[in-house]
Amino acid sequence: MTFHFTQKVLFKHCDPAGIVFYPRYFEMINDCVEAFFDTALGWPFEEVHKTGAIPTAEISATFRRVSRHGDMLNFALSNSAPGRTSLGLAFAVTCGDELRFEVRSTIVNVDEAGKPLPWPDMIRTKLTTDTGVSR
Amino acid sequence: MTFHFTQKVLFKHCDPAGIVFYPRYFEMINDCVEAFFDTALGWPFEEVHKTGAIPTAEISATFRRVSRHGDMLNFALSNSAPGRTSLGLAFAVTCGDELRFEVRSTIVNVDEAGKPLPWPDMIRTKLTTDTGVSR
Amino acid sequence: MTFHFTQKVLFKHCDPAGIVFYPRYFEMINDCVEAFFDTALGWPFEEVHKTGAIPTAEISATFRRVSRHGDMLNFALSNSAPGRTSLGLAFAVTCGDELRFEVRSTIVNVDEAGKPLPWPDMIRTKLTTDTGVSR
Amino acid sequence: MTFHFTQKVLFKHCDPAGIVFYPRYFEMINDCVEAFFDTALGWPFEEVHKTGAIPTAEISATFRRVSRHGDMLNFALSNSAPGRTSLGLAFAVTCGDELRFEVRSTIVNVDEAGKPLPWPDMIRTKLTTDTGVSR
Repeated sequence: MTFHFTQKVLFKHCDPAGIVFYPRYFEMINDCVEAFFDTALGWPFEEVHKTGAIPTAEISATFRRVSRHGDMLNFALSNSAPGRTSLGLAFAVTCGDELRFEVRSTIVNVDEAGKPLPWPDMIRTKLTTDTGVSR
Repeated sequence: MTFHFTQKVLFKHCDPAGIVFYPRYFEMINDCVEAFFDTALGWPFEEVHKTGAIPTAEISATFRRVSRHGDMLNFALSNSAPGRTSLGLAFAVTCGDELRFEVRSTIVNVDEAGKPLPWPDMIRTKLTTDTGVSR
Repeated sequence: MTFHFTQKVLFKHCDPAGIVFYPRYFEMINDCVEAFFDTALGWPFEEVHKTGAIPTAEISATFRRVSRHGDMLNFALSNSAPGRTSLGLAFAVTCGDELRFEVRSTIVNVDEAGKPLPWPDMIRTKLTTDTGVSR
Repeated sequence: MTFHFTQKVLFKHCDPAGIVFYPRYFEMINDCVEAFFDTALGWPFEEVHKTGAIPTAEISATFRRVSRHGDMLNFALSNSAPGRTSLGLAFAVTCGDELRFEVRSTIVNVDEAGKPLPWPDMIRTKLTTDTGVSR
């Protein structure tokens, strides 16, 4: 099942061409992952970062249609089966029925020194069961 | 040959974990492409955007080592043979001898309406010859 | 009366000292003004920018207490009586009962060429009556 | 005497109106202060932040003329006589002969807990003598 996150395209996101400046999309993706950990997994980033971090190891994006100021974007996040310390995420971002862009990433659970750590059991359990929550 | 762009990791780039917040890497990549068009191709973005744009269609990144405040990053940009309206770019980003991350992207030349346009002859010529310039 | 806007402090807002990087506060202020025009005035920025803009002419901020990742900030926006083409705004930003920072700004209604324009009558009317809306 | 910092207005700085999005000016101001501490004072922020921080307590800006993509901005920074733990800074930002905007700020030297600390003697000495360096 799928976690949903919505983000209106705001003035700050847009470039002189009147469309979203693509590095801003990666901020939105990060916000979506932060909301997923908070809402769906019950492990908010402000807690995660007291003792470790969840860096992104790989990310790829394909931009299919531009987005403009005022567009309401829906981020549909789904996760793969978790690895021991890593997790694959896929995002399909739509406006209405139109697919705007797709992203795939791999994130890793690490300790304060940056060393990969197994996912906590509670998180692993949630990641292997239904995590779909709308927000 | 290769175009070189340097960027010191500044305070604004770093997150509470003390490392570069990865959406900031994509701003650096965009700055690197902007410098490449300005310095190596002689077609600065402020000119490009008077009549069109050069959006990014696809981008992927693999983050191998973290970067910290004060690190001096070297972006080595190389381009593939240009397509009719698109161009493949590859970036290897190092600090000293250490490879920090790698990026591949595809950019497209478009008109004001977003319709793909053939690269201008002057740009095509430069892209098919040596464009390596240090900056 | 007062317009309220809430913003959780997210990972992207914070710096290596673990507190909000202050230029991010100005993005939040801009988001707050954008929400005020959309929700309280019924004139969303994506409409405003089709024929003009609302630049900030002056802004000042006093930062009294730091804010940290996870803090829920409340922006209380109040406006002065509108000038012919300008408007004074004041923001008191709190977390719980604690005042974190205060901002004052002057914004101006301009046309596409940047020339000051009188506020539309509908907007002037709303600015001189109760615009308090929670969001 | 005055410390000079230059910043070309890049694509990433500009909004759909084709002018600099003002929160980006505060990033530039922060970069200018970071360069001042590095180049003029010999105390780079990456060193400062190992044991403390230099937060901004107050900042005010007056925007007189817009800046556009491609403009080369010159930041002229001058400092007041240092207080025990604080310092007043003034910035006049020009493009060619035209004054674009002015900023005044107060920064504070603090320890890791955020408690104000006297400026190190070496820094105080440099702040009370000529710190003008071009960059």
